[in-house]
Amino acid sequence: MKEKTKQNVQEAELYKKFKRISVAEFFERNRHLLGFDSPRKALLIAVKEYVDNSLDACEEYKILPDIKVEIDRLENDVYKITVEDNGPGIPYENVPEIFGSFLFGSKFHRFISTRGKQGIGASAVTLYSQLTTKEPVEIITKIKNKEKGIKYKIKIDVKTNAPIILEKEEVEVKKESGTIVKAKIIGQYIKGKQSVDEYIRLTALINPHANITYKNPDGEKFVYKRIINDIPELKEVKPHPYGIELGYFDRLIRETKEKTLLNFLTKTFSSVGQNTAIEVLKKAKLDPDTDPKTLNDDQIIKLYNTLQNAKLRAIPAKYIVTLGRDIILKSMENILKPEYMAAIRRKPALYRGIPFIVEVGVAYGGEITEFQYYRFANRVPLLYKPGEDAITHALKEINWKHYGFEVEGEFPKDPMAILVHVASVWLPFTSESKEAIAPYDEIVREIELGIKNALRELSIYIKKKKALETIGDKYKNLYGYGLEVIDSLSSILDIEKEKVEGRVKERIKKELVNDIYEILKSVREVKNLLKEGKDDRAVTLIKNMLKDTVKINLLSEKELEDMIVEVINDVKKNKLNLLS
Amino acid sequence: MKEKTKQNVQEAELYKKFKRISVAEFFERNRHLLGFDSPRKALLIAVKEYVDNSLDACEEYKILPDIKVEIDRLENDVYKITVEDNGPGIPYENVPEIFGSFLFGSKFHRFISTRGKQGIGASAVTLYSQLTTKEPVEIITKIKNKEKGIKYKIKIDVKTNAPIILEKEEVEVKKESGTIVKAKIIGQYIKGKQSVDEYIRLTALINPHANITYKNPDGEKFVYKRIINDIPELKEVKPHPYGIELGYFDRLIRETKEKTLLNFLTKTFSSVGQNTAIEVLKKAKLDPDTDPKTLNDDQIIKLYNTLQNAKLRAIPAKYIVTLGRDIILKSMENILKPEYMAAIRRKPALYRGIPFIVEVGVAYGGEITEFQYYRFANRVPLLYKPGEDAITHALKEINWKHYGFEVEGEFPKDPMAILVHVASVWLPFTSESKEAIAPYDEIVREIELGIKNALRELSIYIKKKKALETIGDKYKNLYGYGLEVIDSLSSILDIEKEKVEGRVKERIKKELVNDIYEILKSVREVKNLLKEGKDDRAVTLIKNMLKDTVKINLLSEKELEDMIVEVINDVKKNKLNLLS
Repeated sequence: MKEKTKQNVQEAELYKKFKRISVAEFFERNRHLLGFDSPRKALLIAVKEYVDNSLDACEEYKILPDIKVEIDRLENDVYKITVEDNGPGIPYENVPEIFGSFLFGSKFHRFISTRGKQGIGASAVTLYSQLTTKEPVEIITKIKNKEKGIKYKIKIDVKTNAPIILEKEEVEVKKESGTIVKAKIIGQYIKGKQSVDEYIRLTALINPHANITYKNPDGEKFVYKRIINDIPELKEVKPHPYGIELGYFDRLIRETKEKTLLNFLTKTFSSVGQNTAIEVLKKAKLDPDTDPKTLNDDQIIKLYNTLQNAKLRAIPAKYIVTLGRDIILKSMENILKPEYMAAIRRKPALYRGIPFIVEVGVAYGGEITEFQYYRFANRVPLLYKPGEDAITHALKEINWKHYGFEVEGEFPKDPMAILVHVASVWLPFTSESKEAIAPYDEIVREIELGIKNALRELSIYIKKKKALETIGDKYKNLYGYGLEVIDSLSSILDIEKEKVEGRVKERIKKELVNDIYEILKSVREVKNLLKEGKDDRAVTLIKNMLKDTVKINLLSEKELEDMIVEVINDVKKNKLNLLS
Repeated sequence: MKEKTKQNVQEAELYKKFKRISVAEFFERNRHLLGFDSPRKALLIAVKEYVDNSLDACEEYKILPDIKVEIDRLENDVYKITVEDNGPGIPYENVPEIFGSFLFGSKFHRFISTRGKQGIGASAVTLYSQLTTKEPVEIITKIKNKEKGIKYKIKIDVKTNAPIILEKEEVEVKKESGTIVKAKIIGQYIKGKQSVDEYIRLTALINPHANITYKNPDGEKFVYKRIINDIPELKEVKPHPYGIELGYFDRLIRETKEKTLLNFLTKTFSSVGQNTAIEVLKKAKLDPDTDPKTLNDDQIIKLYNTLQNAKLRAIPAKYIVTLGRDIILKSMENILKPEYMAAIRRKPALYRGIPFIVEVGVAYGGEITEFQYYRFANRVPLLYKPGEDAITHALKEINWKHYGFEVEGEFPKDPMAILVHVASVWLPFTSESKEAIAPYDEIVREIELGIKNALRELSIYIKKKKALETIGDKYKNLYGYGLEVIDSLSSILDIEKEKVEGRVKERIKKELVNDIYEILKSVREVKNLLKEGKDDRAVTLIKNMLKDTVKINLLSEKELEDMIVEVINDVKKNKLNLLS
């Protein structure tokens, strides 16, 4: 009896303990899944979520972005973050849910190359703000054809995952359209690698079409001016059958509004045209006019398998937003100020039927003083969790010595920056905080190839540069010996030392100049720059390569400059005949 | 005018695009967040979610677990997973939601040392099953005082995050209580490090109180028998004020059912007794009888800050389930069969006010053939994402050479296994798939200390063992020289070589035995084993240490055994006087 009573108590307990929680409550408890695991990181993530959203909104509405970011230190560890944009504004009725409810957004389930994705970022900042400072977030937004803007103060009711509107009023906004968001959070401001300063710098690097003004809590102001006026064109694409699982395919069939299988296939998916669809349906022994809803389980599985085995073309690359070789070079020059650069864009590759594109820039010397690499996913810099990231995985596969670099630990010790940008209409991240690209084999391999392509070009330059250094040394020695010989000879033969010296020097210089000529003319990048009419950059590049040659004091600055002018004229005249 | 129309179209689009999704839909799209990113991993994760739940349920109801796991290969890549337990069963009405709806569970928001946590795991398997094979999961469960069991077949309606019941019927179940779950998923079965085989082996290692039977798809059967009968005692604990943010504190105040601040403080939190609460309230200038709901914002902030600055004791360690030194040793001996072992349990430490305990076992030689480390979080083996894990971070901090190991790359090349178990009432993971413990500084540091403690003991053994090897070599040489000398002398002095040889050998042997004596007596582990009356294990240990000494052929097996008996008697007689 006693035993039974105990069992009853236990069972009652079992019942009592089961309960449902809201997704907001889940994230409140697991805020590290959103990236808010330390005050230091929280500050960065909050800025990042707002800036990503601003850039996305501008792009979708073809507005050249002007973004202002400001961080103020209030008391103790409390920081106020303000992000202002000239975007299209947010539909007034949607503001509360966008900022005060998880899983409400504009981008979920769209295959599109945007930065943000699933309606989590903005609400995550609100949640973290109310958790740490009890403060709501403030949003002022204005849409173009409305007379007034609107101002909201918003929190989240975590029990129900619903917004709480604390304030709502019409306000005057001078701009035609745009949004300002303000949040007060507990954070920690740091300098260096994983800082907000670095995030903004890299955001400017990968978004050269944006004006970004940034004031950090120390009052330092950074202005990154746009250097191109092309707005990346965002295009939504339908899902590709190869990227879809049976269960999801099943759901698409059951939920479709199309009345025939033919329409279902051609209108739901990318890369399934009229002919392909008819062929697939024929193979699956299904009539194109059948209502999708009437299919039984076996038929659905058969259709799915036939589709998976059909030869379909990939999603066209035009849906993926990349910068391209020229813009990467331009932006690296603007932000990194290197001595030499190379960049490449790979052709689209596929993972799970989803296309992605890798582009890589490498920049060497100049203001770059050590080895570093920058990871970008759909034009967003990634600062955390490098160890999990597909880009780091790929970098570890590189045999650096092969490209002429000296290695220290895993990476070269040369002063070099490597920029890797992976873009796709659907990028897999290792966590909801989107800090690292999941290291799928196909993605890692493709990045590796991209880095190797870019390094190959860089390594030609580096090898030529090292050749120039060797030549400098050679002639320096030659000149030294020459002087010694003259010294002995002059006393024996009673000749005028200074006179002979001059002649020997002239002779050696002439040979040196000839050798340098030969090398410089064969530097492909010099040729390319001149072809593109960028004489100034060619001159700078040559000067950089000759830095060490000047140091040996055989040639004066003036003589070098004269020589460079000659090289350039020479290359220009003969550019088509030169070896690459 | 035209401009305006375009703007209107755009705005309409903006509105149209915003939509809400369910948490099930979110996970359907982001199944890698649940650990289901490859067929290989999916198979492991599915087994793991079910086994974790079975072990948790048994523990909560003080049942010694008997768990049966079976994986069958059906066609192509489809696997059927069956997990059966003798747990308390699941309340019949709750089955559909537990398996067919995310964020419904028994453990969310409880501070308790269980394996599972937030009502996600079981539904994740269902989602993955229907995504990849369109199949529901099957559950048969029985509760003790019910006459019949119940059988369900369940899917998830991802649009609404609600269970779909495809089948529901009463069934005969012979057991008093228990649950069987079956799922069909697309997977990939592999052998080796990240395999299900390995997961089961390590689960047995860290759960020596469980009987686990496992049949893999190749038909191989593994039986891990329980070696202890103690069921870990799970105790729920209230949250500690130090681990709570202002915003959450605010929510607790607004939602409390307590009518006075005094009761609110003492009943809501751990480590806040009557006296502490009164003191805190006095400092915050609040009356203990005040109704919590009447506090204004400033008062809440004041109370929060006072509580954060009060000196509170930590949550008692009894709430954290660990194995303890002896059980770790026993289980390592059972599963790993090493030559030598050491284990330690650290005192509880805190991160964000939440206590956690680190325990470490090190096992050397025997059946262990290479360096490896095993990560455990609340008695669950972690097989993936070692790079992100706090344990790996800590291992990288160890200066292995200092402990007498030879290093190759980052880790020793000695045949050694390191087991690290981190236990807490609330463990932070790097992602919802719970594959790695978040590397919070406090946690990494504590693990590092634990490993160092355990290594210290091991390193004494290893150094002694190496000393024995050196001595062996020394006497081998000595004997060799001796024989040479005798050889020359015998012909010169005309003495009977064999006679002298025998005497020299005896003499050298005696000295060797003396030296070995000294070393063996000082091995603390030998002493400990004898103290605990484990003579057999002491003998085995000594034999292992002397393995190389036997090889030099100076002492016969018999002589060694006699010597060991003497050493043991000697140590026993004098055990209190010996140096450690």
